[in-house]
Amino acid sequence: MSLIIDIHGHYTTEPEGHMAFRAQQLDAVENSLASPAYPNITDDEIIESIEQNQLRVIRERGADVTVFSPRASGMGHHLGDAQTSIEWTRHSNDLIKRVVDLFPRNFVGVCQLPQSPGADLNSSIAELERCVTELGFVGCNLNPDPSGGNWQGPPLTDRSWYPFFEKMCELDVPAMIHVSGSCNPNFHATGAHYLNADTTAFMQFLQGDLFADFPALRFVIPHGGGAVPYHWGRYRGLAMRMGKPDPGEHILPNVCFDTCVYHLPGIELLLDVIPIDNILFASEMLGAVRGADPETGIPWDDTKQYLDALDLSAEDRAKVFEGNARRIYPLLDKRLSELGIG
Amino acid sequence: MSLIIDIHGHYTTEPEGHMAFRAQQLDAVENSLASPAYPNITDDEIIESIEQNQLRVIRERGADVTVFSPRASGMGHHLGDAQTSIEWTRHSNDLIKRVVDLFPRNFVGVCQLPQSPGADLNSSIAELERCVTELGFVGCNLNPDPSGGNWQGPPLTDRSWYPFFEKMCELDVPAMIHVSGSCNPNFHATGAHYLNADTTAFMQFLQGDLFADFPALRFVIPHGGGAVPYHWGRYRGLAMRMGKPDPGEHILPNVCFDTCVYHLPGIELLLDVIPIDNILFASEMLGAVRGADPETGIPWDDTKQYLDALDLSAEDRAKVFEGNARRIYPLLDKRLSELGIG
Repeated sequence: MSLIIDIHGHYTTEPEGHMAFRAQQLDAVENSLASPAYPNITDDEIIESIEQNQLRVIRERGADVTVFSPRASGMGHHLGDAQTSIEWTRHSNDLIKRVVDLFPRNFVGVCQLPQSPGADLNSSIAELERCVTELGFVGCNLNPDPSGGNWQGPPLTDRSWYPFFEKMCELDVPAMIHVSGSCNPNFHATGAHYLNADTTAFMQFLQGDLFADFPALRFVIPHGGGAVPYHWGRYRGLAMRMGKPDPGEHILPNVCFDTCVYHLPGIELLLDVIPIDNILFASEMLGAVRGADPETGIPWDDTKQYLDALDLSAEDRAKVFEGNARRIYPLLDKRLSELGIG
Repeated sequence: MSLIIDIHGHYTTEPEGHMAFRAQQLDAVENSLASPAYPNITDDEIIESIEQNQLRVIRERGADVTVFSPRASGMGHHLGDAQTSIEWTRHSNDLIKRVVDLFPRNFVGVCQLPQSPGADLNSSIAELERCVTELGFVGCNLNPDPSGGNWQGPPLTDRSWYPFFEKMCELDVPAMIHVSGSCNPNFHATGAHYLNADTTAFMQFLQGDLFADFPALRFVIPHGGGAVPYHWGRYRGLAMRMGKPDPGEHILPNVCFDTCVYHLPGIELLLDVIPIDNILFASEMLGAVRGADPETGIPWDDTKQYLDALDLSAEDRAKVFEGNARRIYPLLDKRLSELGIG
C-alpha cells in the first residue's frame, strides 16, 4: 500500500489569539494605531486545535501526511497594506511551523506569501526563501489576484512575476495557485472566486508561453482545476485555434490538478480526462464545504471515498496518493525519506 | 423523432458593413466625431453569410431550428457609452430580425440588450419590449458584467435588476446569462470570462433568494453551466452550510444549463448530474471553438454527436432537443406551432 498524502490542507482551526491579532492588526492600520503585539499561543492550544479537528478526521479517513498551509481565505492580501501583509504572513507561517514541529509525522509545511496589490514580489521572494531554507517548508500558495476579486494586477504570464518564479525554480518548490477572500460582491469566495481563479490561471498559461521560459516551474491548480477538466475539449479546441500545442503538451508538463471535487461524478471525469501523472490527492479539509451528503452519508470533502470507488490500478492509485506528490514536491519527498516514512 | 432545437447560436458571420459600422461608431465616440450612418446591407449578403456558414453546418449535422442572437463578444457593453450601446444594440437586433425573416423556418430571434456600465436598465427594458412585441423575439441575452471583466456592477440578485426581471416575467421570456468581451487582461474572453461568469451567476443565485421574489423568472446558464455541474457536490454542500435548500430545489426550478461542452466526458457528466428537465441542446456554432478534434475527427462544437453517443431514452432525448426549449421559451413554442413545425 502506498502512503496517502493530502497535498491541500489549510489551518482553518487556528487558536483564537491568532485571528484576534489579525483583527487588531487591521484595525490598527485603518485607525493609524500602533501595531498590536502577537499573543502568546501555547503548544496545548495548537495541539487541541489539531487533535480535535484535522487529525481526528485524518485518522477516521485513513490519510498519512497532509501538506499544510495557513487558511487561504485568511491570507487577505487585499486587506491592510504591504507591511501588515509581511507581518501577518510571517506569523501565519510561523504558526504552521509549530504545527509541523508538534506533529512531524502528520504535517509538512507550505507557506503563504506577503503579496499586496501593486507591491513588487521582493518580500514574497524573501519569505519563500525563509520558509523553505529555515522552516523546512516544501512549497507555497501563490495568489493570482492579490486585489481580492478585483483582478487589478497582471496575469501570471507577465514578466513582473518572473523574479518569483526564478526563486521557486532555484529552491525547487512548486506553488499552488490559490486566491484568498473576495471583496467583490459579485464573487462568493469559495463558490465562485476560487473556481474562477483556477480556470483563469489555466487559460493564462494556455495563452502564454511561460513554461518555455521556465521549463522546471511547477504549479498545482486546486479544486480539481476549476472548470478546466469539465471543459477539456474547449481548451483543446481553443489551443488549436490559437496555434498553440495541445494543452497536454503545452501545460501539463508543468501543471497538476488536485482532487478537491466533492462528488463522485466530478472525480470520475477528472480521472477520465486528465492524465494520471497530473492528479494529486487532496481534500482541503476542514474547508469551506463541511458536513455530509444526506443522500449518501459521505462527507462532501472525503474525496478519498470517491477515489476508492473508482477502479484504479495499484500503480495509478500509488501515483495519485503518493508518487505524484513526491515528484512535484521534491522537498516533501526528501523530508519523508529522512523521517523514514513511506 | 423530436425536433432538434439549438438554443444557443450567435451571428458570428455578420456582413462586413455591420462590423465596419461598429468600428466607426466607437471611433466616433472616442474622437468626438459625428455618429456614422448604418450602411446598406443587402439581403444577398445576409443570405450568403448564413447559407455558407450556420445553415451549411446545420444541414450537415441535422438540426432544425436555431435560437439566434447577435455575436456575444460583439455586444461590447463596456465600449463606447450608454447612447452608442443603444444604437449598436438596435442595429444588431434588427439584423437578427432580417435573418429570421429570410430563414423563418431555421432561425428564431433572441436579442442583445443596450446595457452600459453604471447605466440603469430602462433602455434594456424598452429594447426587450421592442424585440419581443415588434420583432417577434423569444428571449434575451443578459450580461451580468457590463464592465467587461472588471465586475464593477452589482450581482444579479441586487434589486437594481428587478425592473428588468419584472419585464421579463411580464413578457414571459427567459434570459441567457451571457457576458461579452473582456477588457481585463487576466480574463481571456471565451476561455475564462465566459465560464467564470456562468459559475459566478449560479453562485449569486445560490446565495440569494431571487426566485422567491420572481417565481416565474427563468434563466439559461450557457456553456454547460461553467464549472457548476463538475462541482455539483461543492454547491450542494455550500448550500447546506449556508442554510439554503438544496440547489435542486432552490435554483433549478428557474435555471437551466445548455450543452455547450465540447467533449463527450463533459456531456456525460452534465447529463449524469443535472436533471434532464434542466438541460437544453445547444452548440454555439459557429463560435469560439472551431475545427475538429484530431483524435476523433468530431468537430469540437458538434455537441449533438456527444449526446447521440449517450444512451438516452426517447423521452429524455425529446426533452433535451425540443421539449425543454419549448417549455422555457413559450414564445418559441408558439412560433413553432404557428409555423406548423414540430
